[in-house]
Amino acid sequence: MSHNSFGHLFRVTTWGESHGPAIGCVVDGMPPGLAFRQADIQAWLDKRRPGQSRFTTQRREPDEVRVLSGTMPGEHDGELIATGTPIALEIENVDQRSKDYGEIARRYRPGHADITYDMKYGIRDYRGGGRSSARETACRVAAGALARLVVPGVRVRGALVQIGEKRIDRSRWDDAEIDRNPFFCPDAEAAREWEGYLDGVRKAGSSVGAVIEINATGVPAGLGAPLYGKLDADIAANLMSINAVKGVEIGNGFESATLTGEANADEIRMGNDGRPHFLSNHAGGILGGIATGQPVVARFAVKPTSSILNPRRSIDADGNEVDVVTKGRHDPCVGIRAVPVGEAMVACALADHYLRHRGQTGRG
Amino acid sequence: MSHNSFGHLFRVTTWGESHGPAIGCVVDGMPPGLAFRQADIQAWLDKRRPGQSRFTTQRREPDEVRVLSGTMPGEHDGELIATGTPIALEIENVDQRSKDYGEIARRYRPGHADITYDMKYGIRDYRGGGRSSARETACRVAAGALARLVVPGVRVRGALVQIGEKRIDRSRWDDAEIDRNPFFCPDAEAAREWEGYLDGVRKAGSSVGAVIEINATGVPAGLGAPLYGKLDADIAANLMSINAVKGVEIGNGFESATLTGEANADEIRMGNDGRPHFLSNHAGGILGGIATGQPVVARFAVKPTSSILNPRRSIDADGNEVDVVTKGRHDPCVGIRAVPVGEAMVACALADHYLRHRGQTGRG
Amino acid sequence: MSHNSFGHLFRVTTWGESHGPAIGCVVDGMPPGLAFRQADIQAWLDKRRPGQSRFTTQRREPDEVRVLSGTMPGEHDGELIATGTPIALEIENVDQRSKDYGEIARRYRPGHADITYDMKYGIRDYRGGGRSSARETACRVAAGALARLVVPGVRVRGALVQIGEKRIDRSRWDDAEIDRNPFFCPDAEAAREWEGYLDGVRKAGSSVGAVIEINATGVPAGLGAPLYGKLDADIAANLMSINAVKGVEIGNGFESATLTGEANADEIRMGNDGRPHFLSNHAGGILGGIATGQPVVARFAVKPTSSILNPRRSIDADGNEVDVVTKGRHDPCVGIRAVPVGEAMVACALADHYLRHRGQTGRG
Amino acid sequence: MSHNSFGHLFRVTTWGESHGPAIGCVVDGMPPGLAFRQADIQAWLDKRRPGQSRFTTQRREPDEVRVLSGTMPGEHDGELIATGTPIALEIENVDQRSKDYGEIARRYRPGHADITYDMKYGIRDYRGGGRSSARETACRVAAGALARLVVPGVRVRGALVQIGEKRIDRSRWDDAEIDRNPFFCPDAEAAREWEGYLDGVRKAGSSVGAVIEINATGVPAGLGAPLYGKLDADIAANLMSINAVKGVEIGNGFESATLTGEANADEIRMGNDGRPHFLSNHAGGILGGIATGQPVVARFAVKPTSSILNPRRSIDADGNEVDVVTKGRHDPCVGIRAVPVGEAMVACALADHYLRHRGQTGRG
Repeated sequence: MSHNSFGHLFRVTTWGESHGPAIGCVVDGMPPGLAFRQADIQAWLDKRRPGQSRFTTQRREPDEVRVLSGTMPGEHDGELIATGTPIALEIENVDQRSKDYGEIARRYRPGHADITYDMKYGIRDYRGGGRSSARETACRVAAGALARLVVPGVRVRGALVQIGEKRIDRSRWDDAEIDRNPFFCPDAEAAREWEGYLDGVRKAGSSVGAVIEINATGVPAGLGAPLYGKLDADIAANLMSINAVKGVEIGNGFESATLTGEANADEIRMGNDGRPHFLSNHAGGILGGIATGQPVVARFAVKPTSSILNPRRSIDADGNEVDVVTKGRHDPCVGIRAVPVGEAMVACALADHYLRHRGQTGRG
Repeated sequence: MSHNSFGHLFRVTTWGESHGPAIGCVVDGMPPGLAFRQADIQAWLDKRRPGQSRFTTQRREPDEVRVLSGTMPGEHDGELIATGTPIALEIENVDQRSKDYGEIARRYRPGHADITYDMKYGIRDYRGGGRSSARETACRVAAGALARLVVPGVRVRGALVQIGEKRIDRSRWDDAEIDRNPFFCPDAEAAREWEGYLDGVRKAGSSVGAVIEINATGVPAGLGAPLYGKLDADIAANLMSINAVKGVEIGNGFESATLTGEANADEIRMGNDGRPHFLSNHAGGILGGIATGQPVVARFAVKPTSSILNPRRSIDADGNEVDVVTKGRHDPCVGIRAVPVGEAMVACALADHYLRHRGQTGRG
Repeated sequence: MSHNSFGHLFRVTTWGESHGPAIGCVVDGMPPGLAFRQADIQAWLDKRRPGQSRFTTQRREPDEVRVLSGTMPGEHDGELIATGTPIALEIENVDQRSKDYGEIARRYRPGHADITYDMKYGIRDYRGGGRSSARETACRVAAGALARLVVPGVRVRGALVQIGEKRIDRSRWDDAEIDRNPFFCPDAEAAREWEGYLDGVRKAGSSVGAVIEINATGVPAGLGAPLYGKLDADIAANLMSINAVKGVEIGNGFESATLTGEANADEIRMGNDGRPHFLSNHAGGILGGIATGQPVVARFAVKPTSSILNPRRSIDADGNEVDVVTKGRHDPCVGIRAVPVGEAMVACALADHYLRHRGQTGRG
Repeated sequence: MSHNSFGHLFRVTTWGESHGPAIGCVVDGMPPGLAFRQADIQAWLDKRRPGQSRFTTQRREPDEVRVLSGTMPGEHDGELIATGTPIALEIENVDQRSKDYGEIARRYRPGHADITYDMKYGIRDYRGGGRSSARETACRVAAGALARLVVPGVRVRGALVQIGEKRIDRSRWDDAEIDRNPFFCPDAEAAREWEGYLDGVRKAGSSVGAVIEINATGVPAGLGAPLYGKLDADIAANLMSINAVKGVEIGNGFESATLTGEANADEIRMGNDGRPHFLSNHAGGILGGIATGQPVVARFAVKPTSSILNPRRSIDADGNEVDVVTKGRHDPCVGIRAVPVGEAMVACALADHYLRHRGQTGRG
């Protein structure tokens, strides 16, 4: 048991605070023989990096990842082969800008973990949110880059499907659009509308929440184990562990509650390939906690950040009532940068379950 | 790691299939010295028991729980004192009615785990759903009864807040109403309306989903540990592990996505008691994965059961296309019986985190 | 994490006290499809049962094991097929003889866990040693019976190699002899000598210790994972968890310390089968925590029981100085009955590592 | 579950190979508020460092440890306060000397893990033993430095009590002597004798084994949990995980087997302080897996290294029969440097159990 590790056979331990010298993770359980390059991991990190657009925080971090263990050089230039021993990944913190946080040292920003860290530990690293900072999510993305290699043929793709009260039109969903706009939005028209909208939110010094959808294809049937090793339960926990997440759903999710049994069940026929063929996917690819082989669909809700430029009533560590205003960096929608993080967390859950399933049943 | 256990310091392992001789659980980590009675556990089980009303399945199980280990007799009659060693609880299966399931042996009921168990294991106990049967939830409720004793002063209460598309009116919320109607509904007016509604659903041989809300008060601030031992992540996993659950949310949940930072943050003032006083609870009692001391509020969505009287298209284990009709027991809304189960899963998470927090920090 | 479970992918949870209504275990992770019979488990339990000879405790327990979950009936009579879900095994306690322990309720028997249970928990089940009783080892043996089926071709065999100061002559080792004498001793001549010796010890109201050796053949190379999932570390922990064990060694064990590098290394040549062939087995089948494919050899030391008929100076729970004399059942050498238990613990470690190795590497 | 982490509430994850850029560990569970200095950790590492005497390997590593996370600066210069979040420690590898190992790339050194790593993973980092190298033990010592701070008043001290066939005279035991000779030997006379002895072994290109004893005082009664969370079982596993360890014993250990119940039991009287007073400590401070409050005494046996200058028969990865001679660094007794490592592993077990005991019972 560890409060700072997740997964079992594919196990990730992360460490590091926003303003410490570095952040990192240890990935334990990478199957021996898998090949990758530092550049592969770097590419996923670059997707996540702050300062990408005017809509995400302007902290300038190169987020250059170093691979410190667990590999041997492969035959080709830059190729690394996992040896089966733990892979340590490390990212230096470059742009801490301590002065941005000087005033905040003893104040509890509402909606943040400042007050609860003090309640729990009696001490906290207040600089940039310390361990609760979204900076740590770079470690998750790095680990996720390795996780993606574990299940042969799997593909994990995230998209922003809602921002504030604005939802995409699913009939206009185009995967190729996701990487073309600053929002990871699969609906080009919505993306255009969101630009003006978010500009307004940002200039007002305010923020909004978001909903992100993760689709994983190529998930082998059988992953996940009843009753307390369910794939969806682990996906839910992994996504809920991301900063600012307040809800998770699988397939039709909360909408399932409104449906009848007839409407919700995914009927089955035999396909031309002699394999079961589901006629729909309300289940989101998971039944009884076990993957069906269909795309796994998960959505999670990110609350609006409370680090806004408008004053909020709060207290400080000495019990004084104060107003809190966040100067410096301000993110109008932290949900945007959560997209690659959600992908990584789902990838890690799939990698873990792939190895566990293979362990118990010999299949996979 | 175990696929059939959850929790760490307060750890529950369950076993048993729908049609086996018994079901049971082992509760490991009960703090020594805590006192309880078999009757306490029995009371919570009776709340859950099938056959309570015409709206829940008509299987007649006395669900009488036996305490087989982990206690010494207390001074008072019937009193048991936990010794700190594992407490084994066992419940005999009495009313299996095998003939109800005879036809279903090789057929995959859509929306059920039948097909995925076969995909994973190559073998399954098809009688009554085997290990995937809701019968196992009796074990969770029994374990939850013990969990409720671990955190001094905690109270965990569940309520049905939505059935199909019908939501309660929160302004009419009355805790005392919850135990007075067959739905665990806190809105008396809604409860009356739901009777007729569900009667219609049942007679039509159909089913609907539901949303359940769990409120826990008396939760000490500090429970939960960043980043991968978060209280809300564990609550989410515990609730998602319940049969037919497709979504979980904390506090404002998915609604948070639609709010601004101003609207969503819970501002803080100093109370007359010299302690922090939150002006609202959009966070649902958890910030950064740690309890704030406010009520913990979680909701989960239960999909409509696919065991309905109307034929569904499916296949069988030999690859033949068939129609599946569920005869025998039929639940128009399985969400109703999930209320005590959700309570138990939240209680177990709180007990576990109470001990873990006390372990790492010495507080509690 | 659990104090009452061991193993990861093959995970065993035990429960039950000496004088409770029953004892049992839950075996989680049995690969689906494996076939066995209740009689198979029963046979291993019968080997362990008290009352077998005048040298082991005279408590009369039929130790009849019931299989309560996790299986489906196979084609043949009495055959059970594991479904991959947890298998609950239960054994009723029949012969508790409370009156034997009446005087001991508040006294701390020296060398027993009485005092430490009170120090830890502030409460203990004193009847028959409660949870610390060797009665619980029946659960281990039952779990071990299932574990033996997991690794194809593995065979785990224990033998008593030393009793008090008397060691066997290894040159007279005959496997077939092990089941022919009351000591599980592979040296027929030593077994004859030990009869008279132990009779004398028993009549003197005294006791002696023992050393047991476990040999496992058919262990696939590759089991065990550096650095903290080493096969020998888990075997050591499993054996050390048995009551009264004070030492564990692998291969040459403590004798290795006295050897030179030349004498201790197992040199390697190529066998006629084109596979590596070790010229010796000082390593006991494990190098760097990983199995070599050679027989795994482990030995453990069992201290003499302190439950003897001669008075010992001690105290009671109220702080009074008292003399403690154990009446009733008296075991002159508890090490004898530890032989099947040691086998079971090694079998469980091997099963667990087989699944873990297969999980991480896909081999097995 | 992780193959590269140990402990539960005080959990250590290590990473790094002999010839990688660095090695490190993540310590998770340090109680918040504990203060320490980088220099404290460095001191323990310096005790372990290679190149200390002509009897230990001549690799020159400064082993300078960096603290990368999990702390806030304290009031005093250089003081660090644990925040309760994971503490990452890192040590750069400076003196790899690849050329020393060039010839060995495909050869399996007998007695080493070379062959088993290949059997398990199909790939290994052969440079300097890769992950199986004793280099990793620096991480354990660093983690142990933190562990020592967790249990108030605990003191963990190791000593070499046997080298080859030469044992110390326990009647001459002097703690102060341990740090005065190159052997961590508490018997000054034996230390003098061992110098000449080991010089001879080294010049002969040979090696011998050793036995190390760890004594821990100030261990609170109650640590450890039956049945599978026993303090001695965890100590055994932790010690067995150290390179080249083949046996572990507690208290009288294997000698217990030769004693009678009368001789072995530790009788109890009441002390002048009104607390239980044991008249001896054959149990080594642990009864029934739980600490009694007496000194915890553990011994472990280290085999002689097989990296010797005399040729050994072996094979290589292509199945050719070869002779293996280790040039370069040669350790006549690797057991010497295992002393600080054994201390660290016991300290970590005690820290972990202290938090677990406090968690389950609220005591400590």
